[in-house]
Amino acid sequence: MSGRSYLDWNATTPLRPEARAAMVAAMDVPGNPSSVHAEGRAAKALLERARAQVAAALGASAADIVFTGSATEAAAMAAVGRALSCGAVEHDAVLAVCNPDLAVTPAGRVIVPDPGQAALQLANSETGVMQDLPPGLALSDLTQGFGKVAFAFDWLGIEAGIVSAHKLGGPKGVGALVLRRGLDLPALIRGGGQEMGRRAGTENLIGIAGFAAAAEAAARDLADGVWDRVAELRNILEKALASAADGTIFVGKEAARLPNTLCLMTPGWKGETQVMQMDLAGFAISAGSACSSGKVRASRVLTAMGHDADHAASAIRVSLGADTTEDDVLRFADAWLAAAKRYRSRAAG
Amino acid sequence: MSGRSYLDWNATTPLRPEARAAMVAAMDVPGNPSSVHAEGRAAKALLERARAQVAAALGASAADIVFTGSATEAAAMAAVGRALSCGAVEHDAVLAVCNPDLAVTPAGRVIVPDPGQAALQLANSETGVMQDLPPGLALSDLTQGFGKVAFAFDWLGIEAGIVSAHKLGGPKGVGALVLRRGLDLPALIRGGGQEMGRRAGTENLIGIAGFAAAAEAAARDLADGVWDRVAELRNILEKALASAADGTIFVGKEAARLPNTLCLMTPGWKGETQVMQMDLAGFAISAGSACSSGKVRASRVLTAMGHDADHAASAIRVSLGADTTEDDVLRFADAWLAAAKRYRSRAAG
Repeated sequence: MSGRSYLDWNATTPLRPEARAAMVAAMDVPGNPSSVHAEGRAAKALLERARAQVAAALGASAADIVFTGSATEAAAMAAVGRALSCGAVEHDAVLAVCNPDLAVTPAGRVIVPDPGQAALQLANSETGVMQDLPPGLALSDLTQGFGKVAFAFDWLGIEAGIVSAHKLGGPKGVGALVLRRGLDLPALIRGGGQEMGRRAGTENLIGIAGFAAAAEAAARDLADGVWDRVAELRNILEKALASAADGTIFVGKEAARLPNTLCLMTPGWKGETQVMQMDLAGFAISAGSACSSGKVRASRVLTAMGHDADHAASAIRVSLGADTTEDDVLRFADAWLAAAKRYRSRAAG
Repeated sequence: MSGRSYLDWNATTPLRPEARAAMVAAMDVPGNPSSVHAEGRAAKALLERARAQVAAALGASAADIVFTGSATEAAAMAAVGRALSCGAVEHDAVLAVCNPDLAVTPAGRVIVPDPGQAALQLANSETGVMQDLPPGLALSDLTQGFGKVAFAFDWLGIEAGIVSAHKLGGPKGVGALVLRRGLDLPALIRGGGQEMGRRAGTENLIGIAGFAAAAEAAARDLADGVWDRVAELRNILEKALASAADGTIFVGKEAARLPNTLCLMTPGWKGETQVMQMDLAGFAISAGSACSSGKVRASRVLTAMGHDADHAASAIRVSLGADTTEDDVLRFADAWLAAAKRYRSRAAG
């Protein structure tokens, strides 16, 4: 889609060239990793190399990585039947398997009285707000942080984390559960002995190879300061919008935030409308999380932070990536400010 | 692996060129199918085109296809908590979620008194033996039949079926559950609204595109008589082996069988040993199902058919594919007969 600017990296990312190359290479590996012959062993070696790459990027041990079909599946593996507590700011994937009974502050911080019985995200997909993960935490949704902010799973001191390939330049439909050494959880999907009996089903070898290459490249980018540059662009954008948008609220600006995420509310102007107008103008952004159903509604994340439904329904998220340029954000600022001006004159007239 | 003959197509198949091309094309689609902007809609269109292709190949309606991360996951979706009955000849993926209390005849046929409470495979992965699926059957594992034998799901009159991409030239780690129109099942993985709420988690778009292209190509091959040619090769192989192998039992020879599958037992000569010897000689075959754990043990499928453990432990499976040549099978016959001769002289000496 030439001429367009993709500013919805928290929804999903374009496939990194490294992931593409690894996937195309994996297409030539014909065997089943569970087969004992040479073709099977070659497939198994590819799988285990990928596991080691993902583990290294996560700061974890390969033996503690369970590949899944999505972070959502990994969340279900980790939490189904455990009645974990969480805040209402969690992603739908986690909210489906925990009780949203933890308090959320206006700044978006979740109060966690009992970490061993709680799930807490590292970073919020809509606002970018980051949490301090308490040691002993039962589960953390690391999907938005992995590849954007530095952490080492083994140093977090938490029990389990979930990650997703397509948030850091890997393919969609591949995730992983990472476990504290020694922790085991009952399998959600049983049958064959794959993933050491923790997740049955022939492994998505091509997708996993792409995940691994993307994770490795993402870790390198992070070390190289790519996300510092992205944060600068986000700040340029925020400043450009703030300078001319009276009445627009910048959510999470005072909190520790993901470097790439900008969430803004312009009360009265529906987020859904803004997304459509910006889409027509050549910019892909979102109103709330994309992961639900294609439907757009008032953001649960923002109401949990104490914003009323009218404010929350006016929110948009702009999320940048490593490929985003200053030209992208300046053109977006111009387009959005022009639309905001049109909205204000219609609202006044 | 040049110079080798891959004769383990029931374990997994090489990726078809059509699937590879579709996957590489899908790599250029950056959006999340749940996003409402142009990039999201393009991803959604790709997903729904793929769903229609898989449905057409299956003889089902697109609305009744739920994409999953494996046939194993699809089996769990269909059967967890339902206490379905099955025969012990089912694949591990199905056996994990049903009670193997149905009788199996020496010919490998399963007696199904109550189809509405039973799971029954269309074809066995180890022996190739096919079953008549009774109308109203709760669940059928169609993985080994899909693409190799002609059927239309909507004409089978069954409630649900599971299929896998990597058995017909698609990528590993992609499957589907196909449902009778109007049937709904509770989601195993909840969270987002993907797959009409029946399976949460961002879809494996690249893998699904590959599955669809492979399914379409497989259906075309089937109509073109490719599997009749494969059956001829299988029969040539069977005849060559039978002519010189005293004491070898050809399992399922009298039953309706998959066109590509040959299962043989040479009592006393461990299947595991044969697999290793043939691997060294340049042929990939298997002893039982590959899907378990890389471990090889006496085939449960064969003991369910009344063979003793010693016989069952001597079984090997040779499974051919569309790329298999007469040269492959004749060279395999030579290699195996030479090894059998060595085995017999050692056993006699």
